[in-house]
Amino acid sequence: MKSYFSSIFGRSPVSPLQQHMAKVLACAEALLPLFKAVSEGDYNAVATAQQRVSDIEREADALKKELRDKLPHSMFMPFDRADFLELLRAQDRIANKSKDIAGLVLGRKMQLPEPLVDPFMDYLNRAIDASRQAKNTVDQLDELVETGFRGAEVEVVQEMLDKLDAIEHDTDRMQVQLRSLLQKLEPRIPPVDVMFLYQLIERVGSLADRAQQTGSRLQILMAR
Amino acid sequence: MKSYFSSIFGRSPVSPLQQHMAKVLACAEALLPLFKAVSEGDYNAVATAQQRVSDIEREADALKKELRDKLPHSMFMPFDRADFLELLRAQDRIANKSKDIAGLVLGRKMQLPEPLVDPFMDYLNRAIDASRQAKNTVDQLDELVETGFRGAEVEVVQEMLDKLDAIEHDTDRMQVQLRSLLQKLEPRIPPVDVMFLYQLIERVGSLADRAQQTGSRLQILMAR
Amino acid sequence: MKSYFSSIFGRSPVSPLQQHMAKVLACAEALLPLFKAVSEGDYNAVATAQQRVSDIEREADALKKELRDKLPHSMFMPFDRADFLELLRAQDRIANKSKDIAGLVLGRKMQLPEPLVDPFMDYLNRAIDASRQAKNTVDQLDELVETGFRGAEVEVVQEMLDKLDAIEHDTDRMQVQLRSLLQKLEPRIPPVDVMFLYQLIERVGSLADRAQQTGSRLQILMAR
Repeated sequence: MKSYFSSIFGRSPVSPLQQHMAKVLACAEALLPLFKAVSEGDYNAVATAQQRVSDIEREADALKKELRDKLPHSMFMPFDRADFLELLRAQDRIANKSKDIAGLVLGRKMQLPEPLVDPFMDYLNRAIDASRQAKNTVDQLDELVETGFRGAEVEVVQEMLDKLDAIEHDTDRMQVQLRSLLQKLEPRIPPVDVMFLYQLIERVGSLADRAQQTGSRLQILMAR
Repeated sequence: MKSYFSSIFGRSPVSPLQQHMAKVLACAEALLPLFKAVSEGDYNAVATAQQRVSDIEREADALKKELRDKLPHSMFMPFDRADFLELLRAQDRIANKSKDIAGLVLGRKMQLPEPLVDPFMDYLNRAIDASRQAKNTVDQLDELVETGFRGAEVEVVQEMLDKLDAIEHDTDRMQVQLRSLLQKLEPRIPPVDVMFLYQLIERVGSLADRAQQTGSRLQILMAR
Repeated sequence: MKSYFSSIFGRSPVSPLQQHMAKVLACAEALLPLFKAVSEGDYNAVATAQQRVSDIEREADALKKELRDKLPHSMFMPFDRADFLELLRAQDRIANKSKDIAGLVLGRKMQLPEPLVDPFMDYLNRAIDASRQAKNTVDQLDELVETGFRGAEVEVVQEMLDKLDAIEHDTDRMQVQLRSLLQKLEPRIPPVDVMFLYQLIERVGSLADRAQQTGSRLQILMAR
């Protein structure tokens, strides 16, 4: 089969899917320098960082389209075609959310209130950890195919997915604390800015959710 | 078939689905004591109630995962596997939204402005009525399977789904009125609190929508 | 096949789908007189226009239900049944969003700040262009079926879809500018009204997104 796919696009559909996930993770990770720039109040750097996020998102989108269009007919696939496309879409949503976050921050020239900076950065990091863990699981897909989705490998992946769930729960917890912190600061910040800070916090939480959904989709692929 | 499923997990997949729906309804209904506590300003009781909602949501989630993982391969199922999973997911979203609502209220120690309390409680009750009606329809699933999705039973269920739509329309109407009421109160309430009250109203509306979508999914299952 | 479908509901399933899309576009286009009335501060006209949007949305919904319920079993269909229903649903979401926008504006008796009026109307128009373009592509579906989804026709449709993407990118760009404009006006407008203006802008952007997703769904239908 590998050589068949090679003649279509040089690698199995699993490999482009993993490439896409790598690109999606890069997109999410590009939020780190962006928020560092925000905390430093350096809006030129924020603009550069936002551009980077946007560029990587575009590259991911192009990979997604190419993969989707070149996907062979079902009978050549070691898994259900619809499940595969749903997994691809789940990955894609992580990149989209990263782009939304970057766009929101740049558009408003958002500032993070000083007491929020460290907890937010921890929170953001944890949300990106979820994407890293999602990538780790997706990277197991060829191994899974190879072993026919059976045996020890499934156990390994199941543990990785459990860990992904745990990371997502961490972010939930951290989100509650961050919102609580922000509520205390509300009197001191213009209401519209407050609302957008809540929106930002929610979007970062969504980033983690989407990483977890990617894991869910992989699980469904495994279960069929 | 019943005995086959028994050996897998003690009941047919229809029955666990119905169990899950019962759990989901319990989750939504747990919002009633929560908001009673809110209207009484008793935040200990709110915290307890939120914990309850969260616990039931976790139980529902566990039921969902067990059902999903143990679902037999398509050829043992009296309906399309993907449709079944979509119905399960629609139910799941009701519990998630209940949990979101409880979390929002507790997190902000939200208060309902006095003029809003009664209309809000009516609204909440009507939204939960939608979940009750959704459960009623899902409870018909074994009857539907038994009669091969044909005949009088389909008529009965169709009427129940029409009633579900009607309840959802009620909530739409009530939401418009509630928002209108709140708009009048805006000058007197801090803007951020106002925004979160609109968010709360919207989320309760979403609760009803998700109950209606559950009905839609059942309809799709019936139609195939 | 045409005669078979005729005996079911007088036309092929492609034709009702196109009828539905025409209805959906009418719904979105009904937002134009609505916002004209808003800019003129004529809330009776706004109410009438909102009623019109709501009525058309109801007609679209009825068409959708009829089509979905009468869809024959897969083996009579020249495309995957699930893909067809997803395309229908994508179209449906455009009408729903139009109705949401109209409801929001009427409910709050929203006013557009004077500096926003023209850019907003351009933006709205461009978002509706996306729906027009989506309809143009859906109108090609019978041609596509006729040619077996092969050859020149596919090229033609692909170009139309590329144009749809371009329109959606325009709306993205215009949204960024509009938000930037609004941010400058924030000090002068009550915060809650500000938040709802952002919501309105976002919903109109969503209108364009949903039109683009309709195009995506058509592309998936073509690719299978």
